[in-house]
Amino acid sequence: MPDPTSDSELKAYLERESDLRIASYMDFLRIPSISGISDHHPDCRAAAAFLADDLRAIGMEHVDVSETPGLPMVYADWLHAEGAPTVIVYGHYDVQPVDPLDLWLSPPFEPIVKDGRMLARGAADDKGQVHMHVRAVEALLATRGRLPLNLRFVFEGEEESTSPHFAAWLEANRDRLAADVVVISDTAFFEGNLPAITLGLRGVMHAQIDVEGPSVDLHSGTYGGAVDNPINALCAIVAALKGPDGRIRVPGFYDDVVPLTEADRTALAALPFDDAAWLASTGSPALVGEAGYTTLERKGARPTLDVNGIWGGFQGEGTKTIIPAHAHAKVSCRLVADQDPHRIFEAFRAYVDDVAPPGVRVSVTLGGTGHPSLLPMDHPATLAAARAVERAFGRPPLFAREGGSIMAAADFGSVLSLPVVLAGFANSDDHAHSPNESMVLDNYERGIRAIAYLWDELAATNLDRT
Amino acid sequence: MPDPTSDSELKAYLERESDLRIASYMDFLRIPSISGISDHHPDCRAAAAFLADDLRAIGMEHVDVSETPGLPMVYADWLHAEGAPTVIVYGHYDVQPVDPLDLWLSPPFEPIVKDGRMLARGAADDKGQVHMHVRAVEALLATRGRLPLNLRFVFEGEEESTSPHFAAWLEANRDRLAADVVVISDTAFFEGNLPAITLGLRGVMHAQIDVEGPSVDLHSGTYGGAVDNPINALCAIVAALKGPDGRIRVPGFYDDVVPLTEADRTALAALPFDDAAWLASTGSPALVGEAGYTTLERKGARPTLDVNGIWGGFQGEGTKTIIPAHAHAKVSCRLVADQDPHRIFEAFRAYVDDVAPPGVRVSVTLGGTGHPSLLPMDHPATLAAARAVERAFGRPPLFAREGGSIMAAADFGSVLSLPVVLAGFANSDDHAHSPNESMVLDNYERGIRAIAYLWDELAATNLDRT
Repeated sequence: MPDPTSDSELKAYLERESDLRIASYMDFLRIPSISGISDHHPDCRAAAAFLADDLRAIGMEHVDVSETPGLPMVYADWLHAEGAPTVIVYGHYDVQPVDPLDLWLSPPFEPIVKDGRMLARGAADDKGQVHMHVRAVEALLATRGRLPLNLRFVFEGEEESTSPHFAAWLEANRDRLAADVVVISDTAFFEGNLPAITLGLRGVMHAQIDVEGPSVDLHSGTYGGAVDNPINALCAIVAALKGPDGRIRVPGFYDDVVPLTEADRTALAALPFDDAAWLASTGSPALVGEAGYTTLERKGARPTLDVNGIWGGFQGEGTKTIIPAHAHAKVSCRLVADQDPHRIFEAFRAYVDDVAPPGVRVSVTLGGTGHPSLLPMDHPATLAAARAVERAFGRPPLFAREGGSIMAAADFGSVLSLPVVLAGFANSDDHAHSPNESMVLDNYERGIRAIAYLWDELAATNLDRT
Repeated sequence: MPDPTSDSELKAYLERESDLRIASYMDFLRIPSISGISDHHPDCRAAAAFLADDLRAIGMEHVDVSETPGLPMVYADWLHAEGAPTVIVYGHYDVQPVDPLDLWLSPPFEPIVKDGRMLARGAADDKGQVHMHVRAVEALLATRGRLPLNLRFVFEGEEESTSPHFAAWLEANRDRLAADVVVISDTAFFEGNLPAITLGLRGVMHAQIDVEGPSVDLHSGTYGGAVDNPINALCAIVAALKGPDGRIRVPGFYDDVVPLTEADRTALAALPFDDAAWLASTGSPALVGEAGYTTLERKGARPTLDVNGIWGGFQGEGTKTIIPAHAHAKVSCRLVADQDPHRIFEAFRAYVDDVAPPGVRVSVTLGGTGHPSLLPMDHPATLAAARAVERAFGRPPLFAREGGSIMAAADFGSVLSLPVVLAGFANSDDHAHSPNESMVLDNYERGIRAIAYLWDELAATNLDRT
């Protein structure tokens, strides 16, 4: 399959364009496209427009910024490879919030290159990888005048906000999304920056717990001891959610979890993973989790419950002797196949109502949901991606499960019944969602070649599984 | 003891000066003297200067703004009543913070008169009552040219910040503080605005719990299930502090509590108190508390534990899928005789260390402390105060226990061995420490007369208990 002539032309082209490419990458990263903060929605639209202009410039067709009830989708296609498969490439142009800002070595939207990495919010997740896909197509069209297969780009602007409008958009655009396979580059290599393809993703269920007590903050001396404290009550509720054995106590929570088979456990145990080194990378004093499972199983193949934020009462300097009027927590559960996020939410809400103390009023609201997803290791598209990655990076990829969630991966499966290949190129220490997000520039450069190789590999693959 | 001639002169003077008095009261309240927020320390100093100028203008002597390691003390005296007792009047010119600002009907430092009340931060607690004391002396000196007893004013600027430097100041100024009794007007009337004298005050112990997990916020998908979450850990710690029966679980916590006698319980039960009406005034759905005690016992004569503030992780709009690096809670315990705040803190810290999960690092720091205090109902100073209050308000005061803390009350007892009379004039619905703090102007006006009468009553009282 490799075509030595076109490969050397591709490499030469990419080398020649290097400075322009990095400059464009940085321009894209400068747009603070945080979808979770509405003040940044104009920036998200600017990032969509930037992407659309870029796609038009490289020769993609039917470039279209289409509205949703939230932030727009960017669509483009190139469909001139008659008889060849059609691939949808999905990515997202929005990024996570950036706080705490004071921990960043340089401002998150002023990208800099440092120690062989691009340092900026979005450098890896996912603007960097979207940019790689656009550059791979640019290089192929520039050097060959055509692509080896048919390609549709679908770039979303609300991935970091649980993709609330994505499934509906897929449904509404079903006609122009005919395809054989979906490729998503929004995952990372394995610990140690070892090339990896991700087979499974966890889903997610977001909820907020709001606890109301007295109608105003009360003097804790005058009222303390007789009026319930919303913060104490919230802590009691949160503490009841998970046992010291790491098991989530919501009744029915584990009912639909597909148990790990012996084969699954053997495959995960075969991954090169050093608990002590990984622990050291987190800065935490000890690894914890559900009894009876390894760290890789806990973080990739088992469901979780975490409080992502909590607040209530006085947070300033000094002391304030109050019983606060209210307290709040944002809770999310990572889910695995076949947990249904809506069923999990109902069970969660019922349990919170059950354990809520009588001296407060408690409400639980659903924030966002995503289904878990899983693709077999022996799928022909998985194997094609493995060959492309090996060719660009010089070693065969590992097959991993990722603890994070990509809503769109589940939506492509449930709405369009398409297999989804998760071939991401971020480094394992990319600090996605944290201060000092970065992308190893060698991953970025080799990844662009891997993407180009993948189109050649998939063009020659029979994607009909029999 | 009442002198009809001087009483009618006093009333006439107070009536004549009414507009000037209210204008001065409002000027004092306009100074945002929040001791708990260091940005407001210049305002605290301005309030101290205002008070010193006022004291000089009315004829008090040795007026002195004396520095402490924190905010200054304002001292003044009038010592020309040879053979008569000497009284120290304590009050504080600092106020609580004002958040949440959006719940105030008018800006907290732009006082307005509304429905017979002065509405502003500090209107009742305690600038209003300090102002009453100054006006009572002004009226006596203006109408009689002298006071019936010797008086020392001691006004503090850090009461709302747990009076960290007050005991040391007392110690250092022992020589100029010779006195027979202390009078503090920093308490309120009983529910229903029934005149009351407070016999007992709770002490307090402030602590902060800081929980540290990973060194930066981590992606909850990538790490969730294997790395402990500081918020979940903090909630588990807080939930372990108190049982569903309202009992504080810190070992040894109740060891030094003086049990309520049958006589104490009978006296408290005799107070006119309607649980349902009081509950309705709070806006909470139910009264709660330590099993086996009435509401009045729980909120006045039993120790408590409340979280005054909690924070960690993402508190913004939308969702952020992180395991936060840290989480924090401000906790305070109200203490009763004879609990020692430092012993309670050590027991608290040891217990928190004990229940802290292994996947996080926990530290506990002491914020501030205050001893509980208690004065018998039959003390001659208590009885003198009761007569003065009855004369001004037309009915004998109730004898109550107050759940709040006044550090200085305990300090006068422990450092100078002086009895402390707690004769406060705030209304029971004053919203001290909450938005829309107010003082009923009728309490303010009658309270000024009650203070003047109290000096006549005490002048004729033998304060040596035999």
